[in-house]
Amino acid sequence: MTHTKGAIATTSSHSAFYNIIPGALEEGLEAYAICFDRDWALWSQYPKLLEKIHVIRVKHYNDAEKIVGAFNSIEEDVIIVPHGSFVRYLPVKHLKQLTHPIFGGIKILGYEGDRDKNAALLQESNILTPRIFKKPAEIDRPVMAKLHGAEGGKGYFIAANKTEFLAKSKDKQIDFIQEYVNGVSIYAHYFSSPLYNRCELLGFDRRLESNANSQFLPPFIPPTFTVVGNVPIVVRESLVPEFLRMGQNFAAKTGLVGPFCLETIVTPDLKIYVFEFSGRIVAGTTVWVPFGNTYANTLWGEPMYMGKRIAREIKEAFKRDKIANIIVDSPNLEEL
Amino acid sequence: MTHTKGAIATTSSHSAFYNIIPGALEEGLEAYAICFDRDWALWSQYPKLLEKIHVIRVKHYNDAEKIVGAFNSIEEDVIIVPHGSFVRYLPVKHLKQLTHPIFGGIKILGYEGDRDKNAALLQESNILTPRIFKKPAEIDRPVMAKLHGAEGGKGYFIAANKTEFLAKSKDKQIDFIQEYVNGVSIYAHYFSSPLYNRCELLGFDRRLESNANSQFLPPFIPPTFTVVGNVPIVVRESLVPEFLRMGQNFAAKTGLVGPFCLETIVTPDLKIYVFEFSGRIVAGTTVWVPFGNTYANTLWGEPMYMGKRIAREIKEAFKRDKIANIIVDSPNLEEL
Amino acid sequence: MTHTKGAIATTSSHSAFYNIIPGALEEGLEAYAICFDRDWALWSQYPKLLEKIHVIRVKHYNDAEKIVGAFNSIEEDVIIVPHGSFVRYLPVKHLKQLTHPIFGGIKILGYEGDRDKNAALLQESNILTPRIFKKPAEIDRPVMAKLHGAEGGKGYFIAANKTEFLAKSKDKQIDFIQEYVNGVSIYAHYFSSPLYNRCELLGFDRRLESNANSQFLPPFIPPTFTVVGNVPIVVRESLVPEFLRMGQNFAAKTGLVGPFCLETIVTPDLKIYVFEFSGRIVAGTTVWVPFGNTYANTLWGEPMYMGKRIAREIKEAFKRDKIANIIVDSPNLEEL
Repeated sequence: MTHTKGAIATTSSHSAFYNIIPGALEEGLEAYAICFDRDWALWSQYPKLLEKIHVIRVKHYNDAEKIVGAFNSIEEDVIIVPHGSFVRYLPVKHLKQLTHPIFGGIKILGYEGDRDKNAALLQESNILTPRIFKKPAEIDRPVMAKLHGAEGGKGYFIAANKTEFLAKSKDKQIDFIQEYVNGVSIYAHYFSSPLYNRCELLGFDRRLESNANSQFLPPFIPPTFTVVGNVPIVVRESLVPEFLRMGQNFAAKTGLVGPFCLETIVTPDLKIYVFEFSGRIVAGTTVWVPFGNTYANTLWGEPMYMGKRIAREIKEAFKRDKIANIIVDSPNLEEL
Repeated sequence: MTHTKGAIATTSSHSAFYNIIPGALEEGLEAYAICFDRDWALWSQYPKLLEKIHVIRVKHYNDAEKIVGAFNSIEEDVIIVPHGSFVRYLPVKHLKQLTHPIFGGIKILGYEGDRDKNAALLQESNILTPRIFKKPAEIDRPVMAKLHGAEGGKGYFIAANKTEFLAKSKDKQIDFIQEYVNGVSIYAHYFSSPLYNRCELLGFDRRLESNANSQFLPPFIPPTFTVVGNVPIVVRESLVPEFLRMGQNFAAKTGLVGPFCLETIVTPDLKIYVFEFSGRIVAGTTVWVPFGNTYANTLWGEPMYMGKRIAREIKEAFKRDKIANIIVDSPNLEEL
Repeated sequence: MTHTKGAIATTSSHSAFYNIIPGALEEGLEAYAICFDRDWALWSQYPKLLEKIHVIRVKHYNDAEKIVGAFNSIEEDVIIVPHGSFVRYLPVKHLKQLTHPIFGGIKILGYEGDRDKNAALLQESNILTPRIFKKPAEIDRPVMAKLHGAEGGKGYFIAANKTEFLAKSKDKQIDFIQEYVNGVSIYAHYFSSPLYNRCELLGFDRRLESNANSQFLPPFIPPTFTVVGNVPIVVRESLVPEFLRMGQNFAAKTGLVGPFCLETIVTPDLKIYVFEFSGRIVAGTTVWVPFGNTYANTLWGEPMYMGKRIAREIKEAFKRDKIANIIVDSPNLEEL
């Protein structure tokens, strides 16, 4: 069977459940969700939502073969919508076995876990980035260091100078040393649209990090940066044009399709440093569901959030018979 | 006179005015409000709201006899909805003189001011709590201490160890010594529903504490933790199932009816410690009025906030003739 | 031509684009916007909005003569709505050349850049303000000092005492020395309405300042206070009546018309100090667009935000033929 109105498929996660799927339903798309057992305790609490979607149960979130099998068992023509944990648990080998197309293609997903490629792509897009130090000997200013396996803000530390870095990194495996830029971290969210032929700045959020964002961090406890939540924000007016320019540059340079996030630090002299990007929907956009935000709603003249925006593009692609445009891999990106 | 559609009554407060009463009106219930003189300057600014409710003026917020008299003078069958200041100013003796039933019963209100009973109930619900130290001699790690009379975050202090505790507590009456868990404080809000037979996780907020959440806390000023406001947040996706489990456990163990809040600290390694609970609506849920939030709205498929959720349960109880189910005192809780 | 329904005009800015203009459109007013070239890259991304308004392009945002010419070229009867950058780039001389009336009059705009006049007006309104020190010799407590040219939070520093002040201010031109009040900064937003004959407390926000609001401020980096964004908040219930009283006092004393903001610090013992006011719409209210907030919506019984509230007053003035009431300069304010 094939619905002409369009359909999406994804795996269970916070972004899927509270953002991508509500957006798909709001736009009138069919939604298929591969739900892992660890998520079922949560999902089963939402009967009103579940009755509107197609759930395929898979036991383990890291059983890539079963996930591929589940996706490939969907008979309807679906577009697979990736998100953070989707990317983490499906290795390239398995991504390539999927018979349904992936929204935004797969090449960009290869930049997720590779900090050097990630930073290079930002620099090529004429975006201000913190300096990267290849060797400890080069350190000539405060740095943010990331231990091997660091992710989601865990395993990071700040050092004021080379001496402090050497002391703090002793007996540890350091994967990445970046200039420490101090300022307010702001996450800017974009949607690059082949059908509307533009890059949209859809809004901003701020992260809550534990323990850095404790109510109070006593001097006897060192800071850590594990992401535990997100807060809705608006930004200073004079920053908006630069945020827009950066996103447009990045979309033009990479040929990326769909949602992406520039993860920035805004300094006291209003410079915007981008320390990383995500080439997919990120959790911070969930603060906008279901009523959107100032920026997205002004642009669209209606409540708009990232999951709904993704669904809007897919709905339009089905309607205009332009699916090829939204699943294409950019020639500007490296092969996986 | 008796309206078959249902009615509530409460006393004047922020939660009443901006949350409970708007929710009742939205659900089509009659609303009675006992308004104290100190609140009238504020309330009188809202003529559009006042014309929809029944206001009974009482001079002093701590005149328990007059409050009981005012409640008992209501001829319509009302359900009394408690909130923070309601609990504080009506002693048990007077609670028992009320002729109208209280939403969620009265036993749970006895746990509000008693830190030991509060902590015990959490532990019995298989919820991770900070260790409590009965005597200063037992202190073997950083602690959060609460002075006699401390409330709303006032009168707390942190000590790195036993020595610092002894120095800081000199000549002071200490009521409570708890392991200091450092991390981001997140307030999780639930609704335990006898009519829908489930415990709903309705969302989260973060508190603003003065001066701990100052823009900058100079080293020459010690931190204090007086609550001055609340911020809307979403939480890291992998935390949501554990927040749900904790709430469900707590609701099952206590037999509690209606809104409650688990007041937590999320550590850098993503453990969730609950340091206190509130067995009623708390002020942080006011950030959701009137359009709800991601979690509550996904669950209900419509804008939902705590005041409206309370009203929904009461409306259903009137409609299904199940009032007894929502005013019952749990056999699992101690007598007042 | 003259529309009887009313029309506004303003210059391009964040507040204009995301707040004032959407509000005017929602209320059915015509909207004229003088758009500077630096803003066009952003504005041109919003075709759905642009097609609903009249845009007049002006090259430089600081070309006051061209701006006056553009405003005066509007044939329709418009009310000019001022905002932060409007005030900054139109000197008094040019303000007086405008042929269309200004919402709220022009006298209040003269208080924007003058810290002494600003503070005096607050004190005359019986509002608690931090003490001002005219000379360094008078300093007897922690102070916040502002360098010459400081604005938007840039160029501020804290000193614990006179000695530290003298050290930090060496070789610098200090414009303003104020008692340093430590606590949570909360921005309270009001609308003083001649047509509804009341001062409305419409809500609150919190500012994000770089680098003071960094996720973590290492000890080796001194704090700075450049505003980079805003966060939506609600406040502790017992504070609301005092916030209301302060706004009502200020509106009564100044005779001010339209939006204003009291910029406050709430201390741990719940005192509210006002360190500055803005006599116009400020950026923090943009967090409410387009769905309002708890306070404004409870007051109006509908979604309400500052841009819409301004438009509502203007629409009513056109309808009731009361334009004179909303453009009047208060006799209580100093001549420009």
